[in-house]
Amino acid sequence: MISEFELISKYFRKLTNRAVLGVGDDAALLRCSHDAGIAITTDTLVEGVHFFSDCDPFFLGRKVLAVNFSDLAAMGARPHSVLLSLSLRECEESWLASFSDGLYRMLEEFQVELVGGDTTRADQLVISVTALGDVDIGSALRRDRAQVGDDVWVSGELGLATLALASRDNSVAYPHELLDDCNKRLNNPEPRVALGRRLIGVANCAIDISDGLMADAGHISTQSKVGIAVILDQIPTHRILSQLGLPQKDLVSLISGGDDYELLFTCSRSRENDIGTLSRELKIPITKIGAVVEGRGVILKDRFGKIVEVDRPGYEHFSRRT
Amino acid sequence: MISEFELISKYFRKLTNRAVLGVGDDAALLRCSHDAGIAITTDTLVEGVHFFSDCDPFFLGRKVLAVNFSDLAAMGARPHSVLLSLSLRECEESWLASFSDGLYRMLEEFQVELVGGDTTRADQLVISVTALGDVDIGSALRRDRAQVGDDVWVSGELGLATLALASRDNSVAYPHELLDDCNKRLNNPEPRVALGRRLIGVANCAIDISDGLMADAGHISTQSKVGIAVILDQIPTHRILSQLGLPQKDLVSLISGGDDYELLFTCSRSRENDIGTLSRELKIPITKIGAVVEGRGVILKDRFGKIVEVDRPGYEHFSRRT
Repeated sequence: MISEFELISKYFRKLTNRAVLGVGDDAALLRCSHDAGIAITTDTLVEGVHFFSDCDPFFLGRKVLAVNFSDLAAMGARPHSVLLSLSLRECEESWLASFSDGLYRMLEEFQVELVGGDTTRADQLVISVTALGDVDIGSALRRDRAQVGDDVWVSGELGLATLALASRDNSVAYPHELLDDCNKRLNNPEPRVALGRRLIGVANCAIDISDGLMADAGHISTQSKVGIAVILDQIPTHRILSQLGLPQKDLVSLISGGDDYELLFTCSRSRENDIGTLSRELKIPITKIGAVVEGRGVILKDRFGKIVEVDRPGYEHFSRRT
Repeated sequence: MISEFELISKYFRKLTNRAVLGVGDDAALLRCSHDAGIAITTDTLVEGVHFFSDCDPFFLGRKVLAVNFSDLAAMGARPHSVLLSLSLRECEESWLASFSDGLYRMLEEFQVELVGGDTTRADQLVISVTALGDVDIGSALRRDRAQVGDDVWVSGELGLATLALASRDNSVAYPHELLDDCNKRLNNPEPRVALGRRLIGVANCAIDISDGLMADAGHISTQSKVGIAVILDQIPTHRILSQLGLPQKDLVSLISGGDDYELLFTCSRSRENDIGTLSRELKIPITKIGAVVEGRGVILKDRFGKIVEVDRPGYEHFSRRT
């Protein structure tokens, strides 16, 4: 069996450029950019909670980065360094090789360096990543800056990851044509890093909606002390999904289910053309789904202005049981 | 049952000073010190691997910080910010209140801020902390700077944490007078942050010996491309322990067992008086235990110069099974 130090050396140590000192000392050493602050975030994926035991380790290596890059994207930050904490059930080399391959390809794609980490044994696979990015402190996209009168926008198409999950336990009739798209969104999400950076100076406020559109809109409402009104029919889903004519309740569940690594942001109405340009240049659908209003809370309405009830606004690990 | 967001808000959100934005957005925002680099490290503690299920959550809250601060100390860095990733079996409020209490008291003691984190559910308690500190990049205490001719020093007294563990399964006869000391070293270790900072400009090289003296000396040997010669009889242990007259093999196991959050460092012979001054001022035992020599590897000798065999140089999660 491979030793802990061999494991790190074989799968998780590559030369770094930006880091003065990467994996292999007590701590990594990073130079500060003098003109930028640091955005830093951590997200953990747990086997059986966030991913299935049989999931492809290559895509898991990508996803554990994607979920963190998505948080940095929501601040408008450029990711540059990550630390990886890996708690493994066993030390299966084929699994590690594939996980490391997915991880490093994603790192290369985003020009990010693995600078440190920890490897330990556990009964269940638990993967924590801490990601650091550069951002100008004063112009970072915070949750507490939405303005009454702003439009509310969302990137991408929502609900496919939740549909992939629902289809696994057959709780939703699954349109076969969506198989690839759904699995891609669930297993290989694309963090909106380029969009986040372009939204600096354009959006007033942004959040990533990995916990679900309604729950995360709620965080903007609370922290910006505003109300958010969202029109259900304007929420972008996949063309095939919208053609299915799902019952409204199912549609609401799908778009609130979480695991959508998209950005929800608000900006002044005068910015509408800028958003159109961004959408074309980045080749990302960006859709206006509502408005920031006086008051508090998130209201979902149908196209006739009738309020739509939301049973379960988002994903929670410790949900209140009544 | 408390919700995930209530849990964070109740137990893990206090105002921060240095952080421009702490817990509660997609990422935390930190200002860079213009004259310093960043030292960053992550360490994970797993229930049943690094601590017992029945351990006191107050001390666990301290220890999960201590193990990370110890890594920063070994770089000569001053810790300022941490992120906490908590995977919980269940959400027991009395446990959380005590864990949070221990954590925040330790943060206050070291003037460090909790700036972010993640809370999730798992079958086993897994706690990852990422800690950031300030350090001047050029003078940080690295593992690869030991010089042939340096003396090798270690702080504190080794072996008590391993003895506490061994005594739990009755594998070692336990001197009753050491009970409190042993449990304190195991459950409430004191990271050598002040010492690490004072070693800047004095030591050539440093490492924290949480994986065990011999294993960690081996890292210095490999990375500095030198040999390390250690004299067993000079390795500091508790007075009572050294009076026990343990068989040499047991003594070697104790001092190599790990979980000693002490610093091993090397410095030029001309610095001997500085180390004495440091020891007195910081009220920490600091003992010369050997020398950096030509060659590779770590050699342990007894007082007569006879080589002492080391069966198991340190703690490994995935040890090679032959």
